[in-house]
Amino acid sequence: MTKRDIPGIVIGRLPIYLRAIQRMAQEGQRVTSSKELGERLGVSAAQIRKDLSQFGEFGKQGTGYNIKYLSEQLRRILNLDVVWDMAIVGAGDVGNALAHYQGFRDRGFQATMIFDNDSGKIGKKIGNLIVQDISEMSKAIQQASIKVAMVATPANHAQEVTDQLVEAGVKAILNYAPIQISVPEGVRVEYIDPATHLQKMSYYLK
Amino acid sequence: MTKRDIPGIVIGRLPIYLRAIQRMAQEGQRVTSSKELGERLGVSAAQIRKDLSQFGEFGKQGTGYNIKYLSEQLRRILNLDVVWDMAIVGAGDVGNALAHYQGFRDRGFQATMIFDNDSGKIGKKIGNLIVQDISEMSKAIQQASIKVAMVATPANHAQEVTDQLVEAGVKAILNYAPIQISVPEGVRVEYIDPATHLQKMSYYLK
Repeated sequence: MTKRDIPGIVIGRLPIYLRAIQRMAQEGQRVTSSKELGERLGVSAAQIRKDLSQFGEFGKQGTGYNIKYLSEQLRRILNLDVVWDMAIVGAGDVGNALAHYQGFRDRGFQATMIFDNDSGKIGKKIGNLIVQDISEMSKAIQQASIKVAMVATPANHAQEVTDQLVEAGVKAILNYAPIQISVPEGVRVEYIDPATHLQKMSYYLK
Repeated sequence: MTKRDIPGIVIGRLPIYLRAIQRMAQEGQRVTSSKELGERLGVSAAQIRKDLSQFGEFGKQGTGYNIKYLSEQLRRILNLDVVWDMAIVGAGDVGNALAHYQGFRDRGFQATMIFDNDSGKIGKKIGNLIVQDISEMSKAIQQASIKVAMVATPANHAQEVTDQLVEAGVKAILNYAPIQISVPEGVRVEYIDPATHLQKMSYYLK
């Protein structure tokens, strides 16, 4: 079975399963079941079993899943047995928060560069990164073979920055700018836009 | 047709349509079509027409959608004809970025309070908000009839904080803590966790 054969929606659930069982591990738990995991996540046990079965056998009927083993396997499937270096584009409030965010490292990612076009920000330190001039971005990303970037620019710069990232070899972009961006085949984009989430909920508010 | 009859996945696409046509309006455009909108968003024109048709007639065959009118209607449907006050819980880097974030106001939301349990943060100013003691949260939220909150605490505090928010009358929670939280029926939760988005993309990276 090739990677293309497994629906994106199944892939999208694996990080949620991984997050939950890593949390269980932190709490000292060693074994779980699709039933327990499902209750924690608000999905059915059958869906969890079906999703995981696409990738192999991770538990035994009646004894459940060994959390350490399942965690290792999910990390392997999601290519998290390495730590991916990331570039942040935009050193405003969002870029700042991302540079300081402590939650990436133990989940497979670390921000190693941050860029901005504002001469007032270039050269300043954010966390342990120094803001670099965006004109040096392509070269820096190519030299470091960076494949993952987070775009935290204003909406009107996001497409231009994306084009430069793709040209420099980036294959996965997490876009915080509140605008849809286009990428060529083979490059992935995910979006984080809090206002769309809020608007989805406000529908139900009256 | 009651609100429950329209699938959540359709509701979830409305903010994306709204964002795109508001962008078009900013660019000076007055009319669009399901075809143009679909191309911008990477979805089919048929899906857009079908989604919108669940709420009424917003365009004429052959002449497309008047952007101003469609925008007003989408805002009305999503209950964005008012600005919703929001509470932020947690004044760390994420809470800080949310308090400074300029992108909420013109999309129907504004942060009006921020809480933390750290005496080193309480009383400090973040943007135009003053960090309040979390022990005052329930009362402040009830008095101001706040219905929307953003949780930006560490994972191990998120459920406790959520329970307090719900008890105080909050109906919509945007959770930035990397953990699944439980809420009673009638309360909505959406999640923002950049690492899960990144992990979904890293699957395709090798």
